[in-house]
Amino acid sequence: MPQGDIGLIGLAVMGQNLALNISDRGFSVAVYNRTASKTTAFLKGPAAESNIIGTTSLTELVEALKPPRKILLMVKAGAAVDALLDQITPLLSAGDIVIDGGNSHYQDTARRCSQLKEQGLRFVGCGISGGEEGARNGPALMPSGHRSAWPELQPIFEAIAAQVKGEPCCRWMGEGGAGHYVKMVHNGIEYGDMQLIAEAYQLLHDGLGLSATQLQTIFQEWNRGPLDSYLIEITGQILGVKDKDGQPLLDKVLDAAGQKGTGNWTVASALELGVPLTLIAAAVFARALSARHQERQVAAQQLGPSGKPFAAAEQDVITAVHDALYAAKIISYAQGFMLLRAAAETFNWDLNYRDIALTWRGGCIIRSAFLDDIASAFEKQPNLTNLLLDDFFSGALSQSEAHWRQTIVLGSRHTIPLPAMAAGLAFYDGYRCPRLPANLLQAQRDLFGAHQYERLDSPRGTFFHSDW
Amino acid sequence: MPQGDIGLIGLAVMGQNLALNISDRGFSVAVYNRTASKTTAFLKGPAAESNIIGTTSLTELVEALKPPRKILLMVKAGAAVDALLDQITPLLSAGDIVIDGGNSHYQDTARRCSQLKEQGLRFVGCGISGGEEGARNGPALMPSGHRSAWPELQPIFEAIAAQVKGEPCCRWMGEGGAGHYVKMVHNGIEYGDMQLIAEAYQLLHDGLGLSATQLQTIFQEWNRGPLDSYLIEITGQILGVKDKDGQPLLDKVLDAAGQKGTGNWTVASALELGVPLTLIAAAVFARALSARHQERQVAAQQLGPSGKPFAAAEQDVITAVHDALYAAKIISYAQGFMLLRAAAETFNWDLNYRDIALTWRGGCIIRSAFLDDIASAFEKQPNLTNLLLDDFFSGALSQSEAHWRQTIVLGSRHTIPLPAMAAGLAFYDGYRCPRLPANLLQAQRDLFGAHQYERLDSPRGTFFHSDW
Repeated sequence: MPQGDIGLIGLAVMGQNLALNISDRGFSVAVYNRTASKTTAFLKGPAAESNIIGTTSLTELVEALKPPRKILLMVKAGAAVDALLDQITPLLSAGDIVIDGGNSHYQDTARRCSQLKEQGLRFVGCGISGGEEGARNGPALMPSGHRSAWPELQPIFEAIAAQVKGEPCCRWMGEGGAGHYVKMVHNGIEYGDMQLIAEAYQLLHDGLGLSATQLQTIFQEWNRGPLDSYLIEITGQILGVKDKDGQPLLDKVLDAAGQKGTGNWTVASALELGVPLTLIAAAVFARALSARHQERQVAAQQLGPSGKPFAAAEQDVITAVHDALYAAKIISYAQGFMLLRAAAETFNWDLNYRDIALTWRGGCIIRSAFLDDIASAFEKQPNLTNLLLDDFFSGALSQSEAHWRQTIVLGSRHTIPLPAMAAGLAFYDGYRCPRLPANLLQAQRDLFGAHQYERLDSPRGTFFHSDW
Repeated sequence: MPQGDIGLIGLAVMGQNLALNISDRGFSVAVYNRTASKTTAFLKGPAAESNIIGTTSLTELVEALKPPRKILLMVKAGAAVDALLDQITPLLSAGDIVIDGGNSHYQDTARRCSQLKEQGLRFVGCGISGGEEGARNGPALMPSGHRSAWPELQPIFEAIAAQVKGEPCCRWMGEGGAGHYVKMVHNGIEYGDMQLIAEAYQLLHDGLGLSATQLQTIFQEWNRGPLDSYLIEITGQILGVKDKDGQPLLDKVLDAAGQKGTGNWTVASALELGVPLTLIAAAVFARALSARHQERQVAAQQLGPSGKPFAAAEQDVITAVHDALYAAKIISYAQGFMLLRAAAETFNWDLNYRDIALTWRGGCIIRSAFLDDIASAFEKQPNLTNLLLDDFFSGALSQSEAHWRQTIVLGSRHTIPLPAMAAGLAFYDGYRCPRLPANLLQAQRDLFGAHQYERLDSPRGTFFHSDW
């Protein structure tokens, strides 16, 4: 008689930690890794105290699982997933469930759902956020795909997920690639949050010349207000870490950011769906610019370096920057939810925006008190067109607005680049602008390309061409 | 004995005008269109005075051409091109040349080059800019693909292209899809140019409350200085056009911009290649935001409308906005050429940046005096890393800088959105920033994802992980 409640393939750190997490919650896990020595090391090491079942072949893994089988793939997104599916699906029986827990592209997940369905199997793509620590102690989980698989997975997934106020950070996201899409947008928002914090840090550090210790105090204080979040918390923590010589370690870190591609995916999807995701785009491009480290040193020499200190009343600037960060963060999430809404319309997903906010509230990198406010907004109005139109957020923006503008003015005057905060402000003013200058664009396009234009005094869909 | 120097398939307006242009230059053109009545109408109408040869089948077209045959496709980009290639290639002989003059994606062009090469044929993708009017009187041409085809096409292409200072706006761009790539970046830059002009227009129109007539005078004046360009010229022209009631027609045009996708392609390519193409991205997203016309009216009601008039010394603001437009335009082109350079490295193209600037100098939508300055910069230093490091442009930026900052400050304070101008300024300050806050991003990524970081005091490529 097979004993395993769930199988897990791929014992890199994320896979190991998830296996331990599942086992800790009282489920029986069978694991398999292509390189058998890794399985052995895992079972003798981190899993020594657990009842995790080691297997040395896919056949052995499949045979160790109770039907209908549930197998969670924790392998590198991309070709590796397809290769593994080719190997394992012939070993499975009708109704068995395969879950992809990697950072797969949502289109791949949609394709695999159809593919496995044709084979009589059930496929689920599950976005998992929270990194190694989340995987071990409670990640945010965003599953989607074959709907009937959910009741069977739910007990395990809800048990291993992060818990906030007694609720698991895990909701069924919908059809096909919805879960991986939501996870992708999560990652895009993470890029935005990180960039906004970095800009606040730079203005205070370079502009006011505040020390790491002073900045640590500021971020710790911010973490007790509306900015309360994991990323603000770890920023304070990082600012307190000293290098061997007693100097702040952060000051020694090279300012060239890496990225793994999901930020790009998010912006690319926004382009395809025609959603003005300007703040996250600015964040993604800011990383690309930072990576040109040597080129920037040359430019600083030839053009004169930017980022010079300025004199101003410290506390006023700190307050202004706080409010700019908060306001811009609202814009970033509003844009992210605009993208989710456009995706739901395009791909026919029935996304529940409140559930998404609740899922992100714990376990993942963007976890924050703020997400509770978003969940409340969608609870009040499930069909809210835009977060900016919710009373709480429109009120927060109107309170922060003056300080936000003041921060952009400071940055613009004193050569301190604030690409994401500034993109956010331009969006805010553009979004509530009844009359943008796109009339001129349309006139130009009609003049040089006969693209035609609509008129303010005619119904939409009536097109005109003029001999300009 | 076949008489045709070149064949042309597809008699939409662009195709018709190119056929007339080629014929006017003394070459014999044979044309074919799937719907024969269109060919008849063309030959009896616009082409009545010409020697253009009409054909009613692809076989007849092929037989009308001197070997090696040259056939220019002017059909809708995408599947239609592949379908046509499938039909026509069996009729061709080894060494015949097929040219795609549509707005094809560069990856499709690269694929078709390989495909036709395997069939013993020569394929050329040719970016053509200038719209209907350019096609008729002289477009900018950006051909690439099978190198040996060029000497045979050159006499025709150079003859029909726009001529500036005795030189044709037509250069061989290189291998595979290079020409369509360069055309794509041209279109992206066109989005940027148009958006910058629109922002200048909005600040002066909404902020200062200038009338269309006053604005016309300003744009006409700007067209005599460093901003001298086709788009500035037509802006002045548009501002002078009256509706039937005597009011400016522009004021009646709906502010919801359309787009045909090449702007998206440009930004998507920048994301893939890691190039911070922030200004063009802001322009593409600005169109997407403008298109949400109804949503903006609701937001203006609920959040209060942005874009309010302000009081200031008129001439000072006009001068500041002029300089902001000029400076931001420099950034946009610098970013566009960064993208071209990254593409050349990635796809192994030997792009000649001076030739590209010369090609764009006439015939196309972005034609301008400015492109002469860019050509000069690359003539002085063919391996110039970045336009911003050229003496002419760094000087121009340092002269415009104060006014540019003042313009952003005005927009930020007075709720007038300037997304592209502001993105440009943040880029300028970021590009010459020796120390961006990406050290904080890297520390965060190392803390939550063990992504590792480099140090300022260690050689590049040495990675560290800390227990933060």
